[in-house]
Amino acid sequence: MRRNDFYLPEGIIYLDGNSLGPMPIAAQQRVQQTVVDEWGEMLITGWNKANWFQQPGLLGNRLAPIIGAPENTVIIGDTLSIKVYQALAAALQLQADRSVILTDSGNFPTDLYMAEGLIKTVGRHIELKVVAPEEVKEHLDESVAVMMLTQVDYKTGRLHDMASLTEKAQKVGAISIWDLAHSAGALPIHLEKCKPEFAVGCTYKYLNAGPGAPAFIYVRHDLINKVEPALAGWHGHSAPFAFDAHYTPANSIERMRIGTQPVIQMAALSAALDVWDKISLDDVRAQSIALSELFIAQVEKRCPALKLISPRNSADRGSQVSFGFEHGYAVVQALIANGVIGDFRAPNVMRFGFTPLYIDSADVLTAVDKLEYVLNEGIWKQENFHQRAAVT
Amino acid sequence: MRRNDFYLPEGIIYLDGNSLGPMPIAAQQRVQQTVVDEWGEMLITGWNKANWFQQPGLLGNRLAPIIGAPENTVIIGDTLSIKVYQALAAALQLQADRSVILTDSGNFPTDLYMAEGLIKTVGRHIELKVVAPEEVKEHLDESVAVMMLTQVDYKTGRLHDMASLTEKAQKVGAISIWDLAHSAGALPIHLEKCKPEFAVGCTYKYLNAGPGAPAFIYVRHDLINKVEPALAGWHGHSAPFAFDAHYTPANSIERMRIGTQPVIQMAALSAALDVWDKISLDDVRAQSIALSELFIAQVEKRCPALKLISPRNSADRGSQVSFGFEHGYAVVQALIANGVIGDFRAPNVMRFGFTPLYIDSADVLTAVDKLEYVLNEGIWKQENFHQRAAVT
Repeated sequence: MRRNDFYLPEGIIYLDGNSLGPMPIAAQQRVQQTVVDEWGEMLITGWNKANWFQQPGLLGNRLAPIIGAPENTVIIGDTLSIKVYQALAAALQLQADRSVILTDSGNFPTDLYMAEGLIKTVGRHIELKVVAPEEVKEHLDESVAVMMLTQVDYKTGRLHDMASLTEKAQKVGAISIWDLAHSAGALPIHLEKCKPEFAVGCTYKYLNAGPGAPAFIYVRHDLINKVEPALAGWHGHSAPFAFDAHYTPANSIERMRIGTQPVIQMAALSAALDVWDKISLDDVRAQSIALSELFIAQVEKRCPALKLISPRNSADRGSQVSFGFEHGYAVVQALIANGVIGDFRAPNVMRFGFTPLYIDSADVLTAVDKLEYVLNEGIWKQENFHQRAAVT
Repeated sequence: MRRNDFYLPEGIIYLDGNSLGPMPIAAQQRVQQTVVDEWGEMLITGWNKANWFQQPGLLGNRLAPIIGAPENTVIIGDTLSIKVYQALAAALQLQADRSVILTDSGNFPTDLYMAEGLIKTVGRHIELKVVAPEEVKEHLDESVAVMMLTQVDYKTGRLHDMASLTEKAQKVGAISIWDLAHSAGALPIHLEKCKPEFAVGCTYKYLNAGPGAPAFIYVRHDLINKVEPALAGWHGHSAPFAFDAHYTPANSIERMRIGTQPVIQMAALSAALDVWDKISLDDVRAQSIALSELFIAQVEKRCPALKLISPRNSADRGSQVSFGFEHGYAVVQALIANGVIGDFRAPNVMRFGFTPLYIDSADVLTAVDKLEYVLNEGIWKQENFHQRAAVT
């Protein structure tokens, strides 16, 4: 759909956009411009002249349509872990008479860890209740303060039904926090329609904003001015440059800002968001499903040693397909050496992301050819493919 | 001292390195390399091949000597506001039987705001006691859990005596947190010798790492493994890629990591730290004092309308000099239009930073010439210099 907007190394089929999106060609020049023409030439005056200070809100508004959010409900900044903490602290403060955070075992670990850290910090007793993904709905009752879920499971690609889970949460008076790390840019999301209270996500996966790109947070419009930020940084102050002795939050989504944001990374994000200008998420979803179905059918036919871990029904999956294999780590390393980049998650999960922005069905067929070759010729058995790297 | 290592626009005298350092020339290429050769070519494999994952610790170790810290006690990441919260939450957890955070009215507002936010979040009663800078010592008593100070006052340039305040704090059993935002890279700091428990700081001022560059945190060696991170992100886990269900902090300063750090900004930081390789902080300090003394003497002689706000005794100042003038905002704008960049803080503070890495005495004399011209010719009275920008 947008193959020409991305740089992909010659001969590489990139099936790991679910972990780190490739470089939009415009990002290179945009970053250089921010470094040389803004930082270099404008120095401190870049905060005004190049509008650095407004970037978190401006980029938030450009990201909003991708996740079905209205204007002025999304702001860029920090890391996803920090945004999880912000949302969770705000939700607990709004639910002073409830003490259960309901989540599932398919949530990304850092979401659970940040909850653990927050629970140790807040004085009152809070229980982090972790249930199986398919059991979340039945555990939603009047004891639940917050339902905190990642929409697409990072390991299996399993997709939660945001609409029905959020509706049930609201019926029992629970606040919903959706982590969109593996869904923003992968499929249509309807925050305004589903009405969850909070959503958070990152921009370096399907949004292609580069390694360590800043995260985002969404707060439902009617709640924004009720949220008391636990991370009360000066950029979220109603008058940051008044340098008041006391914190007064901005009367807008700007109150979810904390400290000084990474201006150079935001330049890359800006270029990455340009790619989405005329993209329909429904088209992205339809093509991503077609590519995933093709991949599953071919792999199951030609590589029978691999077992599908992702849900078989495409409506229950995100944009990623996972296969299990005991020697999955070595297979992924051998595949990478053969020009197909996927990734691996312990203990045995091989993950492949299908992002129609820069992947087509010819790529999928070539990837399966290579996978078949690596398996059937026993390429993965070479010793060098078994050496574990620091980051797996 | 290192003028050739920096890009400064033709005809500009830059006296605002205390707010945002100028671009080290090597930063341009280093950033480009990280974007094009690493993100572009390596894609996800950059986390291993380009060592992205280790950067927070590697850069922390390179920064450590600049602040007198030993190896493996400093780590890069996030924003200074977040690092203040991390340090303060850890300190309060170590001081469960005390309930006063002692700080001063010269602290940077975000430090106070983050404390306010944390106090609202923790269950027990904590008092944020704000006293005048010169009264901190006398308020240090057995009730104080944490003494949280910024070493150099962002408005006045007043320098706290870290050694004697930390010693007194330790005598009364209080934990010290030093914010080095306006001192790291400006003057010699002896964390190992002064033995405070925590220090935090930013890298975009005197360390020249670019707009929105990541912050740092120092934890005293003997305390590292006693700190229970409140912001328990997965990058601080003892085995981040095991994806355990529960958080176990790393047995090292790595536990102060949170989420995925800005890889592109870290490239600029890496280039910025190269500049310090053969620099003596004692030389930086001596030359910065000489430049500041020259500026004060010349301004007082030639611009009598301006009143010195900074301490007169150079041993009591950081690397920045502030003068008060009712129309300071307009004067700073007029100065910028005339090629001298300083900045302004409400209500009447004109700030000028003296960073001998790229400023010399000829620059100081030219800056005073321009200041005198702007004042004596009434240049600042022009209407356009009174229009307030978003960021002042």
